[in-house]
Formats: sequence, C-alpha cells, structure tokens
Amino acid sequence: MERSYRLVISCPDEVGIVAAVSAFIAQHGGWITEAHHYTDPGSQWFFMRYVVRAQSLPFPPAEFRTRFEPIAMRFGMQWYITDSGMNRRVVLMASKQAHCLSDLLYRWRSGELQFDIPCVLSNHDDLRRYVEWHGIPYFHLPVDSTDKEAHFVAVSDAIASARADTIVLARYMQILPAELCQRYPASIINIHHSFLPSFIGARPYHQASERGVKLIGATCHYVTSELDAGPIIEQDVVRVNHHNTAEEMVRLGRDVEKMVLARGLRYHLEDRVLVHDNKTIVFA
Amino acid sequence: MERSYRLVISCPDEVGIVAAVSAFIAQHGGWITEAHHYTDPGSQWFFMRYVVRAQSLPFPPAEFRTRFEPIAMRFGMQWYITDSGMNRRVVLMASKQAHCLSDLLYRWRSGELQFDIPCVLSNHDDLRRYVEWHGIPYFHLPVDSTDKEAHFVAVSDAIASARADTIVLARYMQILPAELCQRYPASIINIHHSFLPSFIGARPYHQASERGVKLIGATCHYVTSELDAGPIIEQDVVRVNHHNTAEEMVRLGRDVEKMVLARGLRYHLEDRVLVHDNKTIVFA
Amino acid sequence: MERSYRLVISCPDEVGIVAAVSAFIAQHGGWITEAHHYTDPGSQWFFMRYVVRAQSLPFPPAEFRTRFEPIAMRFGMQWYITDSGMNRRVVLMASKQAHCLSDLLYRWRSGELQFDIPCVLSNHDDLRRYVEWHGIPYFHLPVDSTDKEAHFVAVSDAIASARADTIVLARYMQILPAELCQRYPASIINIHHSFLPSFIGARPYHQASERGVKLIGATCHYVTSELDAGPIIEQDVVRVNHHNTAEEMVRLGRDVEKMVLARGLRYHLEDRVLVHDNKTIVFA
Amino acid sequence: MERSYRLVISCPDEVGIVAAVSAFIAQHGGWITEAHHYTDPGSQWFFMRYVVRAQSLPFPPAEFRTRFEPIAMRFGMQWYITDSGMNRRVVLMASKQAHCLSDLLYRWRSGELQFDIPCVLSNHDDLRRYVEWHGIPYFHLPVDSTDKEAHFVAVSDAIASARADTIVLARYMQILPAELCQRYPASIINIHHSFLPSFIGARPYHQASERGVKLIGATCHYVTSELDAGPIIEQDVVRVNHHNTAEEMVRLGRDVEKMVLARGLRYHLEDRVLVHDNKTIVFA
Repeated sequence: MERSYRLVISCPDEVGIVAAVSAFIAQHGGWITEAHHYTDPGSQWFFMRYVVRAQSLPFPPAEFRTRFEPIAMRFGMQWYITDSGMNRRVVLMASKQAHCLSDLLYRWRSGELQFDIPCVLSNHDDLRRYVEWHGIPYFHLPVDSTDKEAHFVAVSDAIASARADTIVLARYMQILPAELCQRYPASIINIHHSFLPSFIGARPYHQASERGVKLIGATCHYVTSELDAGPIIEQDVVRVNHHNTAEEMVRLGRDVEKMVLARGLRYHLEDRVLVHDNKTIVFA
Repeated sequence: MERSYRLVISCPDEVGIVAAVSAFIAQHGGWITEAHHYTDPGSQWFFMRYVVRAQSLPFPPAEFRTRFEPIAMRFGMQWYITDSGMNRRVVLMASKQAHCLSDLLYRWRSGELQFDIPCVLSNHDDLRRYVEWHGIPYFHLPVDSTDKEAHFVAVSDAIASARADTIVLARYMQILPAELCQRYPASIINIHHSFLPSFIGARPYHQASERGVKLIGATCHYVTSELDAGPIIEQDVVRVNHHNTAEEMVRLGRDVEKMVLARGLRYHLEDRVLVHDNKTIVFA
Repeated sequence: MERSYRLVISCPDEVGIVAAVSAFIAQHGGWITEAHHYTDPGSQWFFMRYVVRAQSLPFPPAEFRTRFEPIAMRFGMQWYITDSGMNRRVVLMASKQAHCLSDLLYRWRSGELQFDIPCVLSNHDDLRRYVEWHGIPYFHLPVDSTDKEAHFVAVSDAIASARADTIVLARYMQILPAELCQRYPASIINIHHSFLPSFIGARPYHQASERGVKLIGATCHYVTSELDAGPIIEQDVVRVNHHNTAEEMVRLGRDVEKMVLARGLRYHLEDRVLVHDNKTIVFA
Repeated sequence: MERSYRLVISCPDEVGIVAAVSAFIAQHGGWITEAHHYTDPGSQWFFMRYVVRAQSLPFPPAEFRTRFEPIAMRFGMQWYITDSGMNRRVVLMASKQAHCLSDLLYRWRSGELQFDIPCVLSNHDDLRRYVEWHGIPYFHLPVDSTDKEAHFVAVSDAIASARADTIVLARYMQILPAELCQRYPASIINIHHSFLPSFIGARPYHQASERGVKLIGATCHYVTSELDAGPIIEQDVVRVNHHNTAEEMVRLGRDVEKMVLARGLRYHLEDRVLVHDNKTIVFA
C-alpha cells in the first residue's frame, strides 16, 4: 500500500473550514485520496479525515504540523496527522480463550492489518506456546483473586514498558481499574460478547439464552471507567433459534466476536474513529 | 395452497411419543408434509408440529380430536389441531403511524397472509379512510389521558364483539392493562421498535442514538403483563452509522418493524410458535 | 427537512479541485452539511457531492450556475446543482403485481420519499383502483403480443407528456426498446428479481430454485439497451433453504425487491448516484 | 458432547415411513434428540435425519444396521448410520493463501470441529511450517504446468494413502480432473470465492469489481466434474461499495470464505447434508 498521511480534525463547525484545509493542502501540491467530513447536528461539532499521498507533499509530517498550526488555531481545532508507514504499538491482552487472539495474530502475520505487537499479556499461561511461535513475547501475569491490585500494577508496568499506544482486550476477562482506563482514553479496545447495551456484565450468552432473543451479537468499544459503557466502535449479530443452547451461542458468538474486533481494530489503526460525547464517528 | 391440518403438541419428553403420534397418523393414511420436533434440554419438555394433508385423512378435525385423545392422555400432552382452511380472526390496533398497518393490509388484500380482520381499532381517527377503503370497519376509540380506563373498556368490548382470537398491536402506542394481557395469553402480538432487551419503553430510537449503537432493530413479541418482556417471536436489525440522526433511525426502523411484524404474524397464523417459560419455539 | 442545494461534480482528478470548490462556496457563505469525494483509481476520475444549506447562499441555483461555470470550465467538470425543494417527476410503470408499486405509493403518500407522480402506466388494468384512490392518473396501455411497437409508442408518448425525468419499472414485465432506454440515460430505474449477474432474464426465482442457491436477491439498476446489464444501484439478499419452493422464493423475494427498489430510488432522488463506466458511485 | 448415532435416510415418499422408523427406535428404547424430515415436492422424494443417544440403544451401529435393514428394504431406502464418536478423516488441500486453512486448523485444534486430519496437501511449500507446528504431515506436491497429470496422480495417491473420506479444497487453486471428482461423490468440498452462479472461474473478485455489484460472496459446494457447478452447501455475502477496489474485495471476501467453508464443513461432518438432483438438503 502506498504511504500516506492521515489528517484528522475536529472543531466547532463554521463556514470555511474545508476551504481553508483543502487550500492549504492544494497549495503544497497535496494529493487527497480519501476525504470524509461530518457535522454533529446536536453539538454543531465538525469532524474531518483526509488521506494525502506522502509523496505529493514536499515536507514530512513534522513540518506539516508546524505549517498547519495557524489554521488549526484559527478554527480551534483538535487535530493530528499520522504516517501510514509508522505502525501503532498494540499490546494484546487475553485470558484462556484463543479465538480472538488467533484471529488477530493471523491478520498480523499475513500483513492484512499493519501494527506492531510488543507483547501479549495474559492472566493465564495457556496461550504461550502459540504466541511465542510468532516470535512475540508472552507475559503471564496471574491474578490473585484476594489481591487483584498486584496484577494490575504488573499489567500497567508491562504496558508502559512496551510503550503501547493501543491496548486490545481480546477476551481478557478481568475488569480494568478505572485509573488505568483513564490513562489511555480512546486507546483501550474491548470486545464484549453481547449486542450492547443488552446483557452488560458476565455471561451474556446465558443471559441471551434466558431471554430468548433471536439474534446474538458482539460489540467492539473503547474502554472507559464505566463497565461496558464506553463509545461503541462496531457491532454485529448472528441469528439464533430455540435449538441453540447457551453453549452453542458461545460457539456462534465467537465468530461474530472476532470479526467485530478485527473490524474495530482496523478502523482504529487507520485513524478512522473519532470520539465525541461517548459516541464514535467512524469514517469507514 | 392445499388444505391441511396442523397438529401442535407439547408434553414431558419420553421415549415413544413420535412413534405413537406417527403410527396413529399412518394407520389412518395421513400424509405428513411438514414435521418438526424439539426437546428443551433444560426442562426436558417436548414440542412437535405436524402438517397433514386434509384429504389424506378419512375424518375431520373434530373426529381427530376424539380419536387422538387417548394418546394425548397417555403422554400428558397439551395439544391442538387447526384447519388451514379456517382463518384466524385478527383485530388490528394502531395509532397514527401507518407503516405497519399498511404493510399488513397489503399482505392481507394480496392473499399473502391468510386471516380475517373483523375490525381495526385506533385511539386516533387518522387511518380511517385508508382502512375503510379495504371494506374493513374502523373504530376510533379515543384515549382520555385523565381516565384511560374508559378507553380500555371500549377496546376490550370491541375485541370481544369481534370474537378475535388474535390481536396485533401494529404500533398502537398505549400500554394495555395487565388484566387484558392475561385474558389473551400468547395471542396479543406487539411490534417493539428496538432490539429487545435493549431500549425498553418510550422513544427507543432516541435511546439508541444517545448510546451510539451501530445497529438498530425491532422485536415482535407476545404481550404479557410485564412491559416489553413477553416471549420474543422474531427480531431483526439494520445497520446505522454516525450520519443517522434519531429521526433517520425512525425512518430506517420502520422498514425493519414492518418486516419483523409480518414474519412474526405469519409464524403465529401458521401455528409455528409455541411458548415455553417466556421463550418461544418457532418451527419456521 | 431544511431546503438545500446539491452540487454534483465529476471530472478528471487533479490537485486543487476540492480547494477551488470549497473556497467558492465558503466565500459566498455557503454552509456545507454533507460532503463526499471519491476518485476512481483506474480511470483517475474524480466524483464529488456537496449539500449546501439553501439559506446560507445569497443567490439561487440559477445564479450559482453562472458564477460557478468558470471553475467547472477550468477542471473540465460535468456538473449540476439541484434544489431539494423541487421534486423530481417520476412515472411509475407496473404490470399486475402490486408489491413494489404499493410500497412506493406508501412512501410517497407518507412523505418518506419526496417526488411527484404525474401518472402510473401499466399494460394491465388490475392496479387502477388502488392507484386512483391516491388521486394519481392511471393509464392502461395494453400490449398486443403480435405488435409490441404500438405499446411502446404509447408508453413513450405518455412519458413525454408527463414530462418525466425519471421512470421506475416497478415490476413492469416488458423489455423496453433500446431506443427508449437510450433516450433516458441513468433515468430509468428497474428492479430485477435476482442478485445480478446471476439469473438474467425470465423467471429468476425458478432458475435460483433449480440451481439450489442458499440466498436469493434483488437488484436495482439503471436500464440500458442491454438486458439486465445496466449500472447496479443497490442489491440485497435473503436466506432460503431446501424447504423454500420456487413459489416461496417469489414470496420472500417480494420483500427484498421492494426494499431494494425503495433504497435505490431514494439514492437517485437525492442525487447520490453517479454513473461511470457502467458502474455507480453511490454517496449513501 | 454426548455420544450419539445419526441415522440418515432418503427414499420415495409414502405414508408410514416416519411411523416405521420411529416405532423401530422406540421399541428399542432409543432416545431421539434431533429429528428432521423433508419431502421434495417435485420428485416426491423423502429425506430424514434422526440423532439418537448412543447410550439409549442396547446395541451398537453394526447391529442397528442388521436389524434396521428390513425396514430399509420395505421402503427402498438409501440410508446410513454414523457414530459421533468416530471422526471423519479429512484431507485438507491448499495453495499459498492461508486464511481458510488457518481458520480450519484453529477450529480443529480448539475442538470446535471434530475431525481427523491425516495430512495437508499443497502445490506450494509456503504453509508447511504452520501446518507442521500442529503436528500434521504436510506434503508439497508441485504442479508442472506442462504436465499436470503427474500432480494429480500424486494427489490421488496421497488421498488414498490417507484413507480420506472427505477432501476439503481450502483455496486450492487447481481444477481437479473429472475422474478424481467422480471417485469421491459428495465428499470433496470446495470454497469458491464468489456468490455462485455469478462469476464462475478465475478471478471472481475482479469480475465482481468490473460488474459493479454491491455485495460479494462465497460459496461452499461439493465438487463435481463440472467446474463450479456442484451442489451448493452454504453461501454468504458481504456488502461492498464503490470505494472497494478488487484488492479490497479480496480482503473482505477472505472473511466470508472462511466462515462459509467452516459452516459447510460442519454440516458435512455432522451428516446434515443430503444431495438430491444437484441440490442439497441441509438439516441445519
């Protein structure tokens, strides 16, 4: 894939933003290959994502930042520019179940998703051999149920040491402490095994079976300090019927979970997700 | 469509039920065109639905009932047999919105769904002209918000006079009194404009917009005395994104609502829905 | 809905198009509420659709056209601007089947879709009473199978008299002559009852049943002089299984057909569909 | 999962089949946990699948076969009984692409799908290391494009040596010779990367991109001597739009392919698929 820069902007909406940004890019010869705008009608907040061919601009992102700053100031923008050639550093966290982790590792090793994996963290040792086959460090950080804090200190340290910018909870079954969630806003991605806001918390497939729903689902969301209540990135469902026991829902749900997580992570890695008021704008 | 009888059975599971029922039918020359069985693994309860060609049996349903009774007794069956040539009597209830009602009326007048409509009841007069064009009586039963009881007495009387066996709440926006719900168990069909159990109660699309879900849905369920908590017959969803305001979700949701209601009603009319422990077995 | 103008542009891609267009709009105070761009990587052709609040611009579309023309010339644009307050004139054509026509008439009379219907044309008289109830003229133009030309002359005259800018073939079962197709490029919308390019031509559900497919579909496309080969606007599918006879596929397919046609027509009416090399760009 | 026997029957339809079979099972105390019947209305051919708890019967499958034979003779049945405790022997064939193979290996090693893999065959050596990590023999059987026959002799020998009862073409990109296809009727499972019968043959995603379809799909089917024309077991689709290049369709399609193949293989392994007149009955 050709190298490109991704310019992501949000600011109060007003006339002239697109004109100012596109004029800036055009005057430097920038070739836009993808463009998305959106204004939230409630808050009148404006969101924008441009992809520009790296080779078409006469300067690197660092200089772009300096030169673009006056426009950003004028409109009160929150903004950043990323380089598709620079991989995100993504720490994967798992427990005993392999389906989401295996799926992400396949997409990573086949090059379908572009990111670095400094390490995998788990509260169990079960997945070590598979992860290490990929040449990825695996840290087993057990949970002492009488003192969970030690676990979370170890997790926090491992994330910091890995210089992670993204953490993926690939069916990691512990609830992260609020403090950790707040330290990585819009950076911790969880896959919840229900169609949120239905069936928050534990054993959602059993809750779904109990209620007799005809579709089950999965939700990929950013983690906040409130359980299963963070901004939703992606969701999907699969049909079930009375034949499907809770155990079979678990099996059917695995396929939805891994697809939804993979799509959500892709959006995140490509800077397609903007968060606003606990909701996401996804420029897919 | 060829005339047929539908035999619907539920009872505690044990060895020999299918053998006894199918032997009874075979010895009278009955030609089975559709067959479904299911045993609920939790309660070990057995469910069965057979469709038999009317012409293949030497006696009518009334005599079937008498002759089959010993088998039913032996296995402790709850059971019934219906005749596809005898239409259900379905009272439709609506408010101001026409989409579900129009859809059902189309399926009725085109013969796609086979049922009788003794009357349409509404707390508003808006849909009268359209309904009456079909030759169907329309009763406007207004709601006095300071005294809703009078409305429900009128509704109850109208249903009784219509000798309805099924009531469809086609976006009728009032909550039926518990007593009325209990009088027609597994016979009042509602379409709720959310993917239950998410967004129970009022303005579900606005709740969905607020939460930022990526799919919205609709749920067809039997009404019980607990709001939006009855056995679910059918559900479906449609994808939305950040562009879709709550108003657009209302528009997109209408199409899901009418499809889900039509499918649910079809299952009900064809005796495909069995209720057990607040869940449905749908032999679709 | 607030009144707006829709600016739709296509031209060879080069640096500066977005800057020029957005600067023009911004300098006149134009408030952009929706924006889409796309460059076809094969042909390097650029496509763009802007929605601008009517009240934010100091002049009407006619003056916009004059003032914008120099920019259009500079980039070699094919372009147009429409006014959301001006309805398209859509002639509906049907045969005997009512499902697509009924669905469009519901969306029209409820205001969900904004367009004018100067008349309905049919080669059968079956749907007259229903159409006329809506206050819409109904012209029965029979087909003499030994001389179809007379029919198509009548159709052509009726369309011309109606000053139609769009023709919708809502399960009109005749093949339009090539000459007529060419006279209304990207303006005649057909709903084909298969997932094209599977099952071109007659009786697609029977073809699907014969082949044993597990999904059936419908395709909304612009009509060209080559049968069922015009640019595809929208498609969808529904799951079937061995239980579903060809007749049941016809029933299940009706629901897909009407949804797909309604979505395709909406895209067309909102100027969201651009045609390029027998494919569509749909800014949905 | 509890051990069970699966009884699969097809024969001309007549009155009394279900009665005879279920009476036989009941008189031996057999506990039926799943039951499906179907009669093809065109050919009046009857199909049936029963699952019986192994522990409930007083004899093993071999004796079942002897005792049941008179009933089978009476109704002219084609039939077999399998034991859920006896794994199928499935040879996997692949080329260079790993997605389907990786997915099946995950489901195999996690125990989600129950089958034995005597070996993996490939015309390339790329996937050896990954396969061998699982402890599965990998045979690289190269293709000499000037003499493909040698390859197919080697393939045929390897399958025979493996005593395979099922062969899965997990994106194996060669066309098997007719003779080999005929030797394993309803036993060679292919995943074709299009929604058949659209886009038969090579490069279906490029064909799909060229045609401008709005959904792409995958088809799992039994291989016959006619290319991409065998009985379809399972299909699914995913939405695409003008943004998706043929290369992106390849990426999106991979997820559909692996899901459809996994579902199709599951149906096959559980004896849920019956073939009749180049179509399948899938008792899912």
